Amino acid sequence: MVRNEKLKEYRLKEVENYKIHGRTDEGQDPLPLFSQGSGIEVNVTGSELWIDVEVDFDVYEPWVWTALNGAFLSRQMLMAGSYSLCLFRGMSPDTVKNVRFVRELQAMSEDGGCCLLIKGFRSDGAFCPVPGRRYKLEFIGDSITSGEGTYGEKTDMDWLPMYMSVSRNYAGMVSDALEAEFRLISQGGWGILCGWDNDPRHNIPSRYEKICGLAGGERNERLGAAKPYDFQSWKPDAVIVNLGTNDASAFDQPAWEDPLTGQTFRQRRNPDGTYHTEDIERLKQAVIDFLGMIRKHNPGSHIVWTYGMLGYDLTFAITDAMNRYQKETGDANLAFLQLPNTTAETVGSREHPGERSHARAAAVIVEYLRTVL
Amino acid sequence: MVRNEKLKEYRLKEVENYKIHGRTDEGQDPLPLFSQGSGIEVNVTGSELWIDVEVDFDVYEPWVWTALNGAFLSRQMLMAGSYSLCLFRGMSPDTVKNVRFVRELQAMSEDGGCCLLIKGFRSDGAFCPVPGRRYKLEFIGDSITSGEGTYGEKTDMDWLPMYMSVSRNYAGMVSDALEAEFRLISQGGWGILCGWDNDPRHNIPSRYEKICGLAGGERNERLGAAKPYDFQSWKPDAVIVNLGTNDASAFDQPAWEDPLTGQTFRQRRNPDGTYHTEDIERLKQAVIDFLGMIRKHNPGSHIVWTYGMLGYDLTFAITDAMNRYQKETGDANLAFLQLPNTTAETVGSREHPGERSHARAAAVIVEYLRTVL
Amino acid sequence: MVRNEKLKEYRLKEVENYKIHGRTDEGQDPLPLFSQGSGIEVNVTGSELWIDVEVDFDVYEPWVWTALNGAFLSRQMLMAGSYSLCLFRGMSPDTVKNVRFVRELQAMSEDGGCCLLIKGFRSDGAFCPVPGRRYKLEFIGDSITSGEGTYGEKTDMDWLPMYMSVSRNYAGMVSDALEAEFRLISQGGWGILCGWDNDPRHNIPSRYEKICGLAGGERNERLGAAKPYDFQSWKPDAVIVNLGTNDASAFDQPAWEDPLTGQTFRQRRNPDGTYHTEDIERLKQAVIDFLGMIRKHNPGSHIVWTYGMLGYDLTFAITDAMNRYQKETGDANLAFLQLPNTTAETVGSREHPGERSHARAAAVIVEYLRTVL
Amino acid sequence: MVRNEKLKEYRLKEVENYKIHGRTDEGQDPLPLFSQGSGIEVNVTGSELWIDVEVDFDVYEPWVWTALNGAFLSRQMLMAGSYSLCLFRGMSPDTVKNVRFVRELQAMSEDGGCCLLIKGFRSDGAFCPVPGRRYKLEFIGDSITSGEGTYGEKTDMDWLPMYMSVSRNYAGMVSDALEAEFRLISQGGWGILCGWDNDPRHNIPSRYEKICGLAGGERNERLGAAKPYDFQSWKPDAVIVNLGTNDASAFDQPAWEDPLTGQTFRQRRNPDGTYHTEDIERLKQAVIDFLGMIRKHNPGSHIVWTYGMLGYDLTFAITDAMNRYQKETGDANLAFLQLPNTTAETVGSREHPGERSHARAAAVIVEYLRTVL
Repeated sequence: MVRNEKLKEYRLKEVENYKIHGRTDEGQDPLPLFSQGSGIEVNVTGSELWIDVEVDFDVYEPWVWTALNGAFLSRQMLMAGSYSLCLFRGMSPDTVKNVRFVRELQAMSEDGGCCLLIKGFRSDGAFCPVPGRRYKLEFIGDSITSGEGTYGEKTDMDWLPMYMSVSRNYAGMVSDALEAEFRLISQGGWGILCGWDNDPRHNIPSRYEKICGLAGGERNERLGAAKPYDFQSWKPDAVIVNLGTNDASAFDQPAWEDPLTGQTFRQRRNPDGTYHTEDIERLKQAVIDFLGMIRKHNPGSHIVWTYGMLGYDLTFAITDAMNRYQKETGDANLAFLQLPNTTAETVGSREHPGERSHARAAAVIVEYLRTVL
Repeated sequence: MVRNEKLKEYRLKEVENYKIHGRTDEGQDPLPLFSQGSGIEVNVTGSELWIDVEVDFDVYEPWVWTALNGAFLSRQMLMAGSYSLCLFRGMSPDTVKNVRFVRELQAMSEDGGCCLLIKGFRSDGAFCPVPGRRYKLEFIGDSITSGEGTYGEKTDMDWLPMYMSVSRNYAGMVSDALEAEFRLISQGGWGILCGWDNDPRHNIPSRYEKICGLAGGERNERLGAAKPYDFQSWKPDAVIVNLGTNDASAFDQPAWEDPLTGQTFRQRRNPDGTYHTEDIERLKQAVIDFLGMIRKHNPGSHIVWTYGMLGYDLTFAITDAMNRYQKETGDANLAFLQLPNTTAETVGSREHPGERSHARAAAVIVEYLRTVL
Repeated sequence: MVRNEKLKEYRLKEVENYKIHGRTDEGQDPLPLFSQGSGIEVNVTGSELWIDVEVDFDVYEPWVWTALNGAFLSRQMLMAGSYSLCLFRGMSPDTVKNVRFVRELQAMSEDGGCCLLIKGFRSDGAFCPVPGRRYKLEFIGDSITSGEGTYGEKTDMDWLPMYMSVSRNYAGMVSDALEAEFRLISQGGWGILCGWDNDPRHNIPSRYEKICGLAGGERNERLGAAKPYDFQSWKPDAVIVNLGTNDASAFDQPAWEDPLTGQTFRQRRNPDGTYHTEDIERLKQAVIDFLGMIRKHNPGSHIVWTYGMLGYDLTFAITDAMNRYQKETGDANLAFLQLPNTTAETVGSREHPGERSHARAAAVIVEYLRTVL
Repeated sequence: MVRNEKLKEYRLKEVENYKIHGRTDEGQDPLPLFSQGSGIEVNVTGSELWIDVEVDFDVYEPWVWTALNGAFLSRQMLMAGSYSLCLFRGMSPDTVKNVRFVRELQAMSEDGGCCLLIKGFRSDGAFCPVPGRRYKLEFIGDSITSGEGTYGEKTDMDWLPMYMSVSRNYAGMVSDALEAEFRLISQGGWGILCGWDNDPRHNIPSRYEKICGLAGGERNERLGAAKPYDFQSWKPDAVIVNLGTNDASAFDQPAWEDPLTGQTFRQRRNPDGTYHTEDIERLKQAVIDFLGMIRKHNPGSHIVWTYGMLGYDLTFAITDAMNRYQKETGDANLAFLQLPNTTAETVGSREHPGERSHARAAAVIVEYLRTVL
């Protein structure tokens, strides 16, 4: 292998122009990519480009994908260590190449050791300005939004990083179609009020106000994940929520018991199968409260609550809560949008929406957003 | 033209086997086809089949389409008069052919003279039993369900019978996909509470309990259209409502004035553009009342309120009403289902959903009904 | 029915502007529509338009379809007689409507009594000029080009007019996509050298030079069908041949015996299944001769020999003949183009290409012609 | 990162079961993957699997993709060195996972240093038998078959490894659809008689009889690339040739001059634009000779010459040669098949067929092969 002697090494802070995607503590050096869809984008001349990363994890390895001039080029697993990855080689040196290096794996609340840091670049070219995109979108969700099932065979049932993605995820498809940049807050198994297994700690609203409340562990804390997120720094045109699927599951699961205190939590059904009044009520209240939280931090954003990629069970509960939120607040800048349910033809691995289901959902969201943005 | 001397003429009541589609007064002879999708189906041997019809109208001529063995064969305008139409000729005489002769045009509330009657058949074969289909579906709607725009160029803007159809209508597509027979109650421009122009007489619930409350005029009355409909005679597995689009329009129209009494009716917006509380409230009450009416007559049917092919404006109003209806009645056998909005690529004539929009809506409804039927 | 008293009756020759589609003897009054795709096109104002026709046949009734402003509106069987058909009613009188009235049925060589004549129009508007289209295309073929199988269920196996069409035919699809007008010479069962059953009279080249050599019987002769066709009158940009499928079948059929002379004709296979040298040779010579005939009459046209919608058996024979024709003549303005074979998903009635197969073939032809026109 | 202490290291020859894809010298240890589509497939239990590779190149780095249970999982650039790549981690240990590790990059005739070797695996499971597939297919081609343009943006014009693939290549799509394993011999810019630039050394037939005649350099020679290929070892059901596109280009290029001898080579056009008789003749002879060579080594295989993804210029030349080959040899077990040309909608990077063009070509080939296999 003939080495390119002209490569110059840059620490990230030395790079003249780059664009960060996703919520992070932008003052950090190296720069953590906490969440799925987080990444770094450069417009660079030269024949060759490398990125210097630092990676670690206890159990769940991060995956990344790269795009060159907007086109998918690579997707790979990252092992622990500090190393360089070549992003392109041998290109015509004078043209400007647009490169995105993006985290595929969700913030891993179950692996405090999981981190992916950008240290810098190696290049024989120059870093040019990276223009913003037309819109800004924030996506909030669960395993659907984490893209679980977008890779892997239908028969694959393990819960693994490699089956999650943003490269085949409706959030990315919507953003590309609308020329938008996006930020994504999601966690598989979590809900509005509680997780699929009735764990009340696994609610997204409790983490929404931090930079990345879903990235656990001391190291991520040191990297800034637990800091309050500065909502002024990036104002989305629309906030797209896709939650409720796990809250619906909870009604069919046994009670969750706190391993420390022994306290339990359970969303109950009545003997006739309908939802227990108090329990569905506290779920609706959680929807109302979360809408209030989102609105508080995003006063100018259109809020769309999307629902249905894994069943329509909570349509009435969510719309009732949204109606009540509207009446209480007078806030009319929101909408409820059903997404096509996942079918045998569109399902992916782990009984989750596959790429085709994401594409169908994206089409509906794109068509809707075009009428309001 | 060589005449087939073996043709035998049958008055309808003499025909041994046939199946009537659509609500009608089945005791009438000749038999009126009041509504869109109404028709007659036979399984017949022989080489040739004719149908004897009687047609009249003042302004709006009926259209029909025919299917042979389930496949679209013809679609044509019918002029006034009493005459025979050949449905097939020259076929192998021994095989059984399934033939449907179906009205394309909605019941014309604006043309009391419009009627289409089946008098009988001419055949050189035998009429065999016509088996029922797997499911029964009732569709209730407005111009969307009347298939306005499913024929004609995008630039065609006249309001004419030829642009309406059931042959390219989501109701037919859903029914074919699910092996269902269907009945259809719809009228362009009508709503739940009032018409697109605030005319409070143009509400579908007021006509729902008659055989065909939408077919006006003395002649249709004599033919049985205004008789109470016997809901026991045909119990749908699902009732699919697609109403609200004209109720939404009414909020943007001037008041309607009764030409006789001078009384006016108007759905108002507040100065800030939101719906006037009392007015949206009476619309919601109309939804609640109509759900109650449907349920009363169809105690075992799944009710799906579909919405969105021409915009999502009333999503919250409809779901709020449905939530309240549920709470008041405990009726859980109903659902709200959004349909894909019509886009520039899927629009048909008169700015109405085209065939592709109907196909997209049908796919969503089919996928949903498969999970509940 | 309220009659439109303003309708004025026009004999065809009195109509100021109209456009004839398809080969015919344009001096005739009434005007015969001999072939599939033959028709008449008008640009007309007024609220209502009728066409006066005269129809007859012994066995096989003609079908027609109509388009309004380019969109499919109706398709129906025509019975024998002299009568008027309403093409539209109730339209805004001032706009110009483009109307096409088109024969669906191929010229019926087996029914000398089959004829469809245009006598005139009835209108309350004015007939405006009908501009030509961008290109002119001539299609030459067999049952595929006659659109057999484009209507009807897959199980339908009768040989009947109603299953043939130009409204779902690749010839029409190609022409629409390229903004072309077209003329069509085709006959089910016929070939280049002989018919599917070895009948050597059933070769298309023998009829190509007449106005409509495929329309049999004395009446059609009186109407001008057998007159020499004036190739100067309409110069196609491309001639698209789609022949060979029946010539391939002949090799698997018993000898044909002339009912009058007792002479026989047969395309033979060798014992090992390959084509008998002399027989495949005379077929190739027929291809060469037909290319020469087409070129003689269309010196400036691009000739495309398309093949494959019902199998690729003669690919080598046809290309060999085309290569030899090229070497003998130096004519380089021709091409061979394979079309997608018909599959279980794309087949129509009578084991012939269905609408989807026609659509696939049309896409290939359109893409090709775009590179040469 | 928690290391898996149970991983056991296997040299390739110690692995009990595995399956090699692509032509190679199977006795080598480590095992070279010379060609695009070459790879190794295992059925393995255990929670984790790594592959040990040795990689080198002077200029053009190899890319690989991996599939888990048949589904695309990763695609990445490989740098020079000897190292391990993790193929999966954290899976349920008892299930059998099917893993393929496949070379994306064509054999690089222009980089003698380019090599990719499999040294072994690391696993905590057992290697189970890998069954063969239903069919065997051999693909022979140029840049189209090397998948140039299947990755990258339409605007990307560099000639680079990253734009070539087998993961989005018609050869892979055809093989997957037919449950076939395949071997692939292809080289961008090469032809039947000469390369796109008239270089007569760049003809595929001259390399066809070696294991990998396209892999240059001493090291590849030591690895067995230049050894005669044992055609008895793997008998394809069909050989699919896709050559001619560069031979057509040569007619429009200046003469090639041998840098050593000064001798020149050029395919000429006549002043009127037609092909020079002698030159097109030697091209046809090269087709005839190559068909003979393929047949000699694959006496039982169906041979399909496909053509057209980048234009139909040589349809007549190729079919003429095939006809002559057939007449000379009596060999009837071959076919000519046109593929859909690449359009603005289906083009990929470097003006080459994109993934959609490959998908269209694959569909045609699959439909054809289903009728003959």
